[in-house]
Amino acid sequence: MLDFEKMANGGLARIKPYQAGKPIEEVKRELGLDDVIKLASNENPFGMSKKAVEAAKKAIDEGNFYPDSNGFYLKHALHVKFGYDMKRITLGAGSNELINLLFEAFVNKDVNVVLPDYSFCVYGMEATINGAQVKSVPLNDWKVDLNKVLAAIDSDTRIVAFANPSNPIGTAIPSADMKSFLKKVPENTLVVIDEAYNEFNSGDATYEDSARWLNSYPNLVISRTFSKAYGLAGLRIGYMLSDPGIVSVLDRLRAPFNVNAVAQAAAIAALDDDEFIKKTVDNNTKERARYMEFFKAQGVKAIDSKANFVAADFAPHDAQKLAAELLKRGVIVRPLLGYKLRDILRISIGTPEQNDRFFKETAELLKTL
Amino acid sequence: MLDFEKMANGGLARIKPYQAGKPIEEVKRELGLDDVIKLASNENPFGMSKKAVEAAKKAIDEGNFYPDSNGFYLKHALHVKFGYDMKRITLGAGSNELINLLFEAFVNKDVNVVLPDYSFCVYGMEATINGAQVKSVPLNDWKVDLNKVLAAIDSDTRIVAFANPSNPIGTAIPSADMKSFLKKVPENTLVVIDEAYNEFNSGDATYEDSARWLNSYPNLVISRTFSKAYGLAGLRIGYMLSDPGIVSVLDRLRAPFNVNAVAQAAAIAALDDDEFIKKTVDNNTKERARYMEFFKAQGVKAIDSKANFVAADFAPHDAQKLAAELLKRGVIVRPLLGYKLRDILRISIGTPEQNDRFFKETAELLKTL
Repeated sequence: MLDFEKMANGGLARIKPYQAGKPIEEVKRELGLDDVIKLASNENPFGMSKKAVEAAKKAIDEGNFYPDSNGFYLKHALHVKFGYDMKRITLGAGSNELINLLFEAFVNKDVNVVLPDYSFCVYGMEATINGAQVKSVPLNDWKVDLNKVLAAIDSDTRIVAFANPSNPIGTAIPSADMKSFLKKVPENTLVVIDEAYNEFNSGDATYEDSARWLNSYPNLVISRTFSKAYGLAGLRIGYMLSDPGIVSVLDRLRAPFNVNAVAQAAAIAALDDDEFIKKTVDNNTKERARYMEFFKAQGVKAIDSKANFVAADFAPHDAQKLAAELLKRGVIVRPLLGYKLRDILRISIGTPEQNDRFFKETAELLKTL
Repeated sequence: MLDFEKMANGGLARIKPYQAGKPIEEVKRELGLDDVIKLASNENPFGMSKKAVEAAKKAIDEGNFYPDSNGFYLKHALHVKFGYDMKRITLGAGSNELINLLFEAFVNKDVNVVLPDYSFCVYGMEATINGAQVKSVPLNDWKVDLNKVLAAIDSDTRIVAFANPSNPIGTAIPSADMKSFLKKVPENTLVVIDEAYNEFNSGDATYEDSARWLNSYPNLVISRTFSKAYGLAGLRIGYMLSDPGIVSVLDRLRAPFNVNAVAQAAAIAALDDDEFIKKTVDNNTKERARYMEFFKAQGVKAIDSKANFVAADFAPHDAQKLAAELLKRGVIVRPLLGYKLRDILRISIGTPEQNDRFFKETAELLKTL
């Protein structure tokens, strides 16, 4: 009998597949529930912009044609909207695909990858798949400690990667700290900043657009997504900003039609709806504050978040039991056992009504758990 | 200055990016034309099934949610429709992504890959990217010569890959020949049959569903797409049939949300519209015969095709000039310079009206070229 695990390259045999959050339909089916809310995958609780919906539906009428392989119109829209140099943009089927491509292109068994603890699990998986050693760096009060990160970087470090704001924790590194860090990282180490939750930081004066630093640091790589604030998670689209030399390498590695036509059309329209983003971010900021108040009142240690979710330490309550009981009541939240965090749950910030439901059910359950 | 080509893994520096066919909009813009037809990318000239359009548009209303990571409902639909074992199915963003993942998982610098000449260019690119040696096998009268392919396979051959029907040539290998080939291939060489054009062979008694052979040959891998007969090219969705051990490896390598929700919904609905597939295949069969007649009358050597395109050798006419002149008249066809075929153009079979236009313009141009 063939042993495909043995035949597979590099560290594939050591990888456990990613455990995705359960789709609402599956939870309804399994538990026989009608009214289920999902506060588990950091999706936009308002759906997507009406402009994006309209553009996406229009694109379906020409869905028999292959998508634009180069994503010209979306790159142009990003240029017009934010001033980004089109030669620095790579489009992907979500930023996850772009992270995978970057690791596949530049990581191998002769290099190592430096990752702060509780980094988005995909970075570590990709490092292992491509045969590299992972050097983990402990957090400091749930925040990335950039001095410790610097100390972990050696001459074989090909990539240092973290999300800012972080996922699944939610803390963020201010721009001033990031800039002084970039100055000290050796030039042949790529600094990958995953800014999936970037938009939720807007309005905070301590954060500037990191894309401004690309000219000074050819080793800086920024990934962004339309899955979170823009609400296009189901369509799969994101972009990466980097030196054009990296764009050229990724263009050789990616499938020529890696980004579907519907997502491209929706993303262009979504960029054109500032009002929707404002509504999304304003709700998030306001409701996030309500989460912090709620947890404080309940004696639960919530970690300060700059993203669209809150990670909270429920000890001495049994967090796993709480998640299971909430599920039975139709509220899906995210356990973090994959990160070996038994006491912490990650809760995505929903609409005010959804959040009220979470508060009510949780307050009730905490009395007995 | 950083040399990202030098930093990139394996054979990436040696790869030239895939040249996609020009989108209709781009041709219109460049040439100032209004009425352009694209017979270049083997797309479905009837669009997609109305059922698929409807399902896709409905899915957009929930586009803010991540797609089903495991594609349960589509796998189930494939099981119900064709009897395929769900444990043998991997879904991808087009069969291209699945081919890429398979090569990334199983190909490396210590193995070689056997490819008949004029194979879909992606196989060779993926072999090179992953560091393997490519062993090319000449065709025999434009057909894959399975004896020569067998002779090229050695103990280090990890993959032998070809499309059936082939692309960009269009010839096909009958099932009886394929079965006796499979019996002779060493067990540790994966036989990858890319059946992107499979549906256009239907009704031909010499072809059976190759999925029936999976139980006997754990090294058999079949890729399929919804881009061609089903008309979903813009949405990006395909599937791979293989031993469950290969599915397990690919599940670790793929991004958890590699297939968007709109494509999943559209594919399920498309499988439920036999009438649309029948209309598509019937038109193709009938019109393909008209192409053969036309080329015969014009003294052009067309290669017998089992797919939804015809490759024709225009020598002594200048095929490149013909393609350029057709483009000026709003008819996009596909030159094959990437395959070093100067005299051959590949023309996708369109609607009767589109084909009439190709015939008329080509007949006119051949008088002067």
